[in-house]
Amino acid sequence: MRRSIDINVDAGESYGNWKMGNDQQVFASVTSVNLACGSHASDPVTMSASVEAAVSHGLSIGAHPGYPDLAGFGRRHLAMSGPDLFASVLFQLGALSAFTKLHRTAIRHVKAHGALYLHMMVDPATADAVASAVSSFDASLPIVILAGEGGELMRAAAQRHGLRTLREAFPDRSYLPNGQLTPRSHPDSLVLDPELVAERAVGMALHRTVDAVDGTEVPAEADTLCIHGDNQAAPEIAAAVRRALEQAGVDVGPPTHGT
Amino acid sequence: MRRSIDINVDAGESYGNWKMGNDQQVFASVTSVNLACGSHASDPVTMSASVEAAVSHGLSIGAHPGYPDLAGFGRRHLAMSGPDLFASVLFQLGALSAFTKLHRTAIRHVKAHGALYLHMMVDPATADAVASAVSSFDASLPIVILAGEGGELMRAAAQRHGLRTLREAFPDRSYLPNGQLTPRSHPDSLVLDPELVAERAVGMALHRTVDAVDGTEVPAEADTLCIHGDNQAAPEIAAAVRRALEQAGVDVGPPTHGT
Amino acid sequence: MRRSIDINVDAGESYGNWKMGNDQQVFASVTSVNLACGSHASDPVTMSASVEAAVSHGLSIGAHPGYPDLAGFGRRHLAMSGPDLFASVLFQLGALSAFTKLHRTAIRHVKAHGALYLHMMVDPATADAVASAVSSFDASLPIVILAGEGGELMRAAAQRHGLRTLREAFPDRSYLPNGQLTPRSHPDSLVLDPELVAERAVGMALHRTVDAVDGTEVPAEADTLCIHGDNQAAPEIAAAVRRALEQAGVDVGPPTHGT
Amino acid sequence: MRRSIDINVDAGESYGNWKMGNDQQVFASVTSVNLACGSHASDPVTMSASVEAAVSHGLSIGAHPGYPDLAGFGRRHLAMSGPDLFASVLFQLGALSAFTKLHRTAIRHVKAHGALYLHMMVDPATADAVASAVSSFDASLPIVILAGEGGELMRAAAQRHGLRTLREAFPDRSYLPNGQLTPRSHPDSLVLDPELVAERAVGMALHRTVDAVDGTEVPAEADTLCIHGDNQAAPEIAAAVRRALEQAGVDVGPPTHGT
Repeated sequence: MRRSIDINVDAGESYGNWKMGNDQQVFASVTSVNLACGSHASDPVTMSASVEAAVSHGLSIGAHPGYPDLAGFGRRHLAMSGPDLFASVLFQLGALSAFTKLHRTAIRHVKAHGALYLHMMVDPATADAVASAVSSFDASLPIVILAGEGGELMRAAAQRHGLRTLREAFPDRSYLPNGQLTPRSHPDSLVLDPELVAERAVGMALHRTVDAVDGTEVPAEADTLCIHGDNQAAPEIAAAVRRALEQAGVDVGPPTHGT
Repeated sequence: MRRSIDINVDAGESYGNWKMGNDQQVFASVTSVNLACGSHASDPVTMSASVEAAVSHGLSIGAHPGYPDLAGFGRRHLAMSGPDLFASVLFQLGALSAFTKLHRTAIRHVKAHGALYLHMMVDPATADAVASAVSSFDASLPIVILAGEGGELMRAAAQRHGLRTLREAFPDRSYLPNGQLTPRSHPDSLVLDPELVAERAVGMALHRTVDAVDGTEVPAEADTLCIHGDNQAAPEIAAAVRRALEQAGVDVGPPTHGT
Repeated sequence: MRRSIDINVDAGESYGNWKMGNDQQVFASVTSVNLACGSHASDPVTMSASVEAAVSHGLSIGAHPGYPDLAGFGRRHLAMSGPDLFASVLFQLGALSAFTKLHRTAIRHVKAHGALYLHMMVDPATADAVASAVSSFDASLPIVILAGEGGELMRAAAQRHGLRTLREAFPDRSYLPNGQLTPRSHPDSLVLDPELVAERAVGMALHRTVDAVDGTEVPAEADTLCIHGDNQAAPEIAAAVRRALEQAGVDVGPPTHGT
Repeated sequence: MRRSIDINVDAGESYGNWKMGNDQQVFASVTSVNLACGSHASDPVTMSASVEAAVSHGLSIGAHPGYPDLAGFGRRHLAMSGPDLFASVLFQLGALSAFTKLHRTAIRHVKAHGALYLHMMVDPATADAVASAVSSFDASLPIVILAGEGGELMRAAAQRHGLRTLREAFPDRSYLPNGQLTPRSHPDSLVLDPELVAERAVGMALHRTVDAVDGTEVPAEADTLCIHGDNQAAPEIAAAVRRALEQAGVDVGPPTHGT
């Protein structure tokens, strides 16, 4: 049976006069995109332009809500209460939806950003608030979770709220033996060599495992592979991953409806 | 022929730990409400709670977008470009719509806030950006404009974008002879006595005129009367206005679909 | 030997158009004030006006830095790195110092706000970053710590950076048996009856203990007693505390140089 | 008599995760630097690092306050009241001073940013608020004004508040015949060729005139020349300007105490 997989990238993360990422170049190689919603990054003009660019590249668009912390880029934990987080995620989805509607498309999935993504994988109240917000907004939207054991808590929360999930693996990030991502503070948290990232991506797609930092093999059945866009080499990495996957006979395309 | 008119109030203008207005008390006397959208005031939790309270009082809900300037409460001019303003208004409408959908209602009209409201009445580019944003979001939403001559520029912009308008008069604000509102910096910009506000409201509804600060009578055919909610006496004023209008035989109810 | 103690209040916590607290009324009864520095609350105009009001009441002025989180009023934990927190505290001290200089006075102590105050009492890296920032700004400024066991970690950090400390007790907050404050999420976290607060204040000043929520007596030698200003009854509570302390023969006055 | 002139650059304009400019490379060629103060750009960590870098290059440090509008990078007019602006500038100066003190240096001059710089040159109330704030903070700090006729209104405001001024010309910006800068919205507002910028800089230093966009020669006696740092070519431009000035026999050095 032929494997199929999505390649996603977080994008639309500029803010006002500050530009981030080479979105347009990365868009040429990926099949879906997670767009920041104005809380950890982005602004209304950037959101509109990013949706428009994604549409012009034929990408499937996901919302990418994060903690409302511009100064920290959503990468540091913020102890929001469940009701605060529920309302914040709903706010972000609503805001982005105005721009998908403007450009005659729609949000197709939701992927949380940064510290929120990591925290909802391990904290039941956070998992519940995020799942509840997505479900209240549109229960047909799958939510992206960590592939493997690391995503089980969030998968259960999604299921309780009637949501499907998309399992995500990170060929350009290293893993801990327990299947969680190595923290960004770790010196080896990033894999930077395009060919190595591409090789890891093919392994993830074909063998459904991830190599952890200590060399152990961690099971990780993935529906989508993430390429980090806030990286100078992102366009080259995305292209290498796409090429390697196609050469390995993997169907590369937007995420299916999840599981 | 019996007159009918709406009474509206700007509400949902708390922010985080800071509370503003006596929304619930004012809601008992008005028929529509304009809810802040998180840019000049409000936050996701406040937006959700405000929609819920409005629904429970049977009010017609409007979006109340303003300049993205929390520190200035949207009351000082911010020289946004047309594209920036267009995207900002769209962002605000989208964000609020997530909460009207959550509470099984919908946005029924749009009223700009503060300095944006005043500037769009006199500046063609601003009028165009706001009308275009509302029209892109939902061309069936009427937009609130200043009753009388002061609203003509905005009415024309609305019409160019296929929007209907609701003409608004302010019984608790004083007017200049040209039909514009007296600036808030003016010592007599506010009318504070509930009975005087009520009397002005009846005059507006029945005679379709406004008395200017210099005593001249300014024509002002209004579909809706605004009561300012950020005023300690707002509940009392709203109640006096409602009572006086009903005693004068005016039908008080949510705005019709505009003209 | 006669006891002496300071009564402090957190103030200057309005933001733009949003007002908080009855600062001027509370100022009549306290002897020192901790002024917000624009990160969890306050703005430049509020900072200037608050310093001016404090000077006119003869109060000793402290800086009240908090997490840079207006939306959360500095009351939720934000996982700032040590260098981020160090720089943020320094920024806040510098900003406030422009206004103390304008009004011909100076910052006399530093008291952290909300979640930062609580976190620095238990987290070594946070304690170190705050102490280091205060010491870099002006090593002669004492820093306020929790009286009793709860403040020991922070006292050690202060000492490492050459800072003196002022031990603080909270007659209007309840305590856990371990000497920490009961979290605000707890239904009995606040003591609201002015006479009861006053009685607790006298007990703290004379017997150097605090009654915990379970009735146990916790040792708490305090240099200063905090009255929460974001409370409708704050003026009445502050007056009751002042009166009771003076009637009990306690000298009420600004903090000494700490220990 | 030998001419002497300063070369200044606006720097420290990153924000959180968003980087701007090639500060370190430009610092090699300029003699003074204007550092953002956290309102239109920058954050506490960036402010500290920028002061440190400026010190290590032996630059004279100026404060660069702007409108409190991160989303607009301080480049759009914000209608602040005089008291709001006065307090905002003071706040910014105080905040930066904490970092100059940390790194054992001091603020040596003040240059307003973007829309505030332009507005204070033409609006008496704005000129007065800025001059008053600088004078209240430290009356020995010269304030940077537009060279030529365009700076006369601000020079008068500075003199009323006992401040000296540094006259600034912009070799990489084009001028209107009235001596004001061509608005950034104009297609020819920037001069991008390093050799042309260098040639204009030498003309400004030696002949004390500026060529306007229409070819007319505008008198502009300058104490300092600004190189824009938010430009990919800034390091090259700064180096070309420095080299050309030195080859022309001009003494390049930090601003004197102003006039």
